[in-house]
Amino acid sequence: MIIDVHGHYTTAPPQLAAWRRRQIDSAGTPFTEKLVISDDEIRQTIGDSQLRLQKERGTDLTLFSPTAGGMAHHYGDETTSRQWTQTVNDLIHRVCTLFPESFVGVCQLPQSPGVSPANCVDELRRCVEEYGFVGCNLNPDPTDGYWTGPPLTDRFWYPLYEKMVELEVPAMIHVSMSCNPNFHGTGAHYLNGDTSAFMQLVLGDLFRDFPALKFVIPHGGGAVPYHWGRYRGIAQDAHRPPIEELLGNVFFDTCVYHYPGVRLLVEVVGADNVIFASEMIGAVRGIDSRSGHYFDDTKRYVDALGELSDAERIRIFEGNAKRVYPRLNKVLAAAAG
Amino acid sequence: MIIDVHGHYTTAPPQLAAWRRRQIDSAGTPFTEKLVISDDEIRQTIGDSQLRLQKERGTDLTLFSPTAGGMAHHYGDETTSRQWTQTVNDLIHRVCTLFPESFVGVCQLPQSPGVSPANCVDELRRCVEEYGFVGCNLNPDPTDGYWTGPPLTDRFWYPLYEKMVELEVPAMIHVSMSCNPNFHGTGAHYLNGDTSAFMQLVLGDLFRDFPALKFVIPHGGGAVPYHWGRYRGIAQDAHRPPIEELLGNVFFDTCVYHYPGVRLLVEVVGADNVIFASEMIGAVRGIDSRSGHYFDDTKRYVDALGELSDAERIRIFEGNAKRVYPRLNKVLAAAAG
Repeated sequence: MIIDVHGHYTTAPPQLAAWRRRQIDSAGTPFTEKLVISDDEIRQTIGDSQLRLQKERGTDLTLFSPTAGGMAHHYGDETTSRQWTQTVNDLIHRVCTLFPESFVGVCQLPQSPGVSPANCVDELRRCVEEYGFVGCNLNPDPTDGYWTGPPLTDRFWYPLYEKMVELEVPAMIHVSMSCNPNFHGTGAHYLNGDTSAFMQLVLGDLFRDFPALKFVIPHGGGAVPYHWGRYRGIAQDAHRPPIEELLGNVFFDTCVYHYPGVRLLVEVVGADNVIFASEMIGAVRGIDSRSGHYFDDTKRYVDALGELSDAERIRIFEGNAKRVYPRLNKVLAAAAG
Repeated sequence: MIIDVHGHYTTAPPQLAAWRRRQIDSAGTPFTEKLVISDDEIRQTIGDSQLRLQKERGTDLTLFSPTAGGMAHHYGDETTSRQWTQTVNDLIHRVCTLFPESFVGVCQLPQSPGVSPANCVDELRRCVEEYGFVGCNLNPDPTDGYWTGPPLTDRFWYPLYEKMVELEVPAMIHVSMSCNPNFHGTGAHYLNGDTSAFMQLVLGDLFRDFPALKFVIPHGGGAVPYHWGRYRGIAQDAHRPPIEELLGNVFFDTCVYHYPGVRLLVEVVGADNVIFASEMIGAVRGIDSRSGHYFDDTKRYVDALGELSDAERIRIFEGNAKRVYPRLNKVLAAAAG
């Protein structure tokens, strides 16, 4: 079985974006408009895109969440964020209900700049307990490009971590859009978010306080595996534990869109901490005009890793996902039941 | 000959930091104190550290600049930055005068948040024409961690670029310290700065306006080579030119502190665009307790690249530096008589 832990509903019907635009424009006044999307529209937008690509590429199941760039937690206020978050999580639940064999839900959180992440606990619980979602996306920068909040190791975040541990759900640490003209969204802000988050974890003692907490750092960990020696050295110079100690809690996905990058990732981090993912349909949608293959068809790069044992390959494609997302494991066991 | 294009005077006598502390504390009032450091103190702090390491590692010449983290352009105002910049550039000039065979100068610029980079032209000219410096360090984020200025492709920066082209000096795009608690300096802000700068260049047409302008992106280009496929794909999706077209103007140094990273860098970017550097004595000062070698002894990683031809190796160690820093080439030609 091949599980892709990083997929977004970027192909939602256009009513969603239009609704969101009107919601943002109405900030400060009540917005009670209902989003109307039919099941057939969902079937079509999934069937023509994510589901088609799953079949073409030979993957089986995607952990599916709202568009990451669209979380856009900086718009409006906490109420704006909560309404938008509930709306898109509801939509993900409908996708997963219509295609239960192909998609399992991961939720957005109703974060808002300066607001305690305790405000996310209810929505996380709702999505996990009522909808059967197995993880969440956690935005380390709800300002969307200005990073004026506290690092992930700050106690500010602890109420959310407590609930995550209680519910047995990991978080993918995933920034959203960038409104800072210095940071292109998918080409800079995403990778910077990944890199910054890892370095925060190197310096903090978060997993001493939460030994069961698990994070997935997407996009192959930003710059981290490429600079693994730098991190090892910085940790040693700073008298921090070896960074390998983080690997009980921190995992990296394979959203690295060329073979040399994926090879380095697995070589450096090791097969136990790499989780297959494609981010599709996401940051890079095109077919490489040189190879004739989709840039984000990351399965091809993993398949090409000749040095992997069968057991390692299964861990990357399936085993690590089941381990990091224990609720996913239960869903699959029940389905196989 | 082995040229290291990225070294900082991080070992300057303690008077320098004390002077700087008093200068910052005096911001808003005139500060006329003279920095007093003897030639012997310079000889000792260089001889015991950078010069010793050059000899131990078998490198010949370092392009030497003030401590990058110490540029700290956000302190005080433009006058503060200018006085500090002149002071540290003068100190670099003294190092290069005392050790002309081992160090060639690269200057800091008197940048200040919100102030036009036109204010840097005089100091750049002074360092190049009067001191014989061959390059400059350009901070893409003078706010030191909040990124509220315009991207490098904005016309805001053009007066500086015009002078760089006229003087035939490249810039290393190098952020300074981070005062944002989300970004560790050397473990996040440095790499994020490199990544963000490259992506700005992908989206802009800077080198159409300045075909002779050259940038070195340090720290192996941040996340960029590891994510080369992502950048190729984003450029293609955005109908931008292939990113390889940037390689006439953009070069990456080898400050990547493990072999798999340096191997990926050279494999992906190609030997024509990789320039040897160690950043020493800088971000990572320790000896790897596992290998027994300095993390930042990057020559070992390049030496270990078995697939390099002799010609490629010479380009990485020497040829590319001479090409990107034409004034260095002239200095070396003159010395060789």
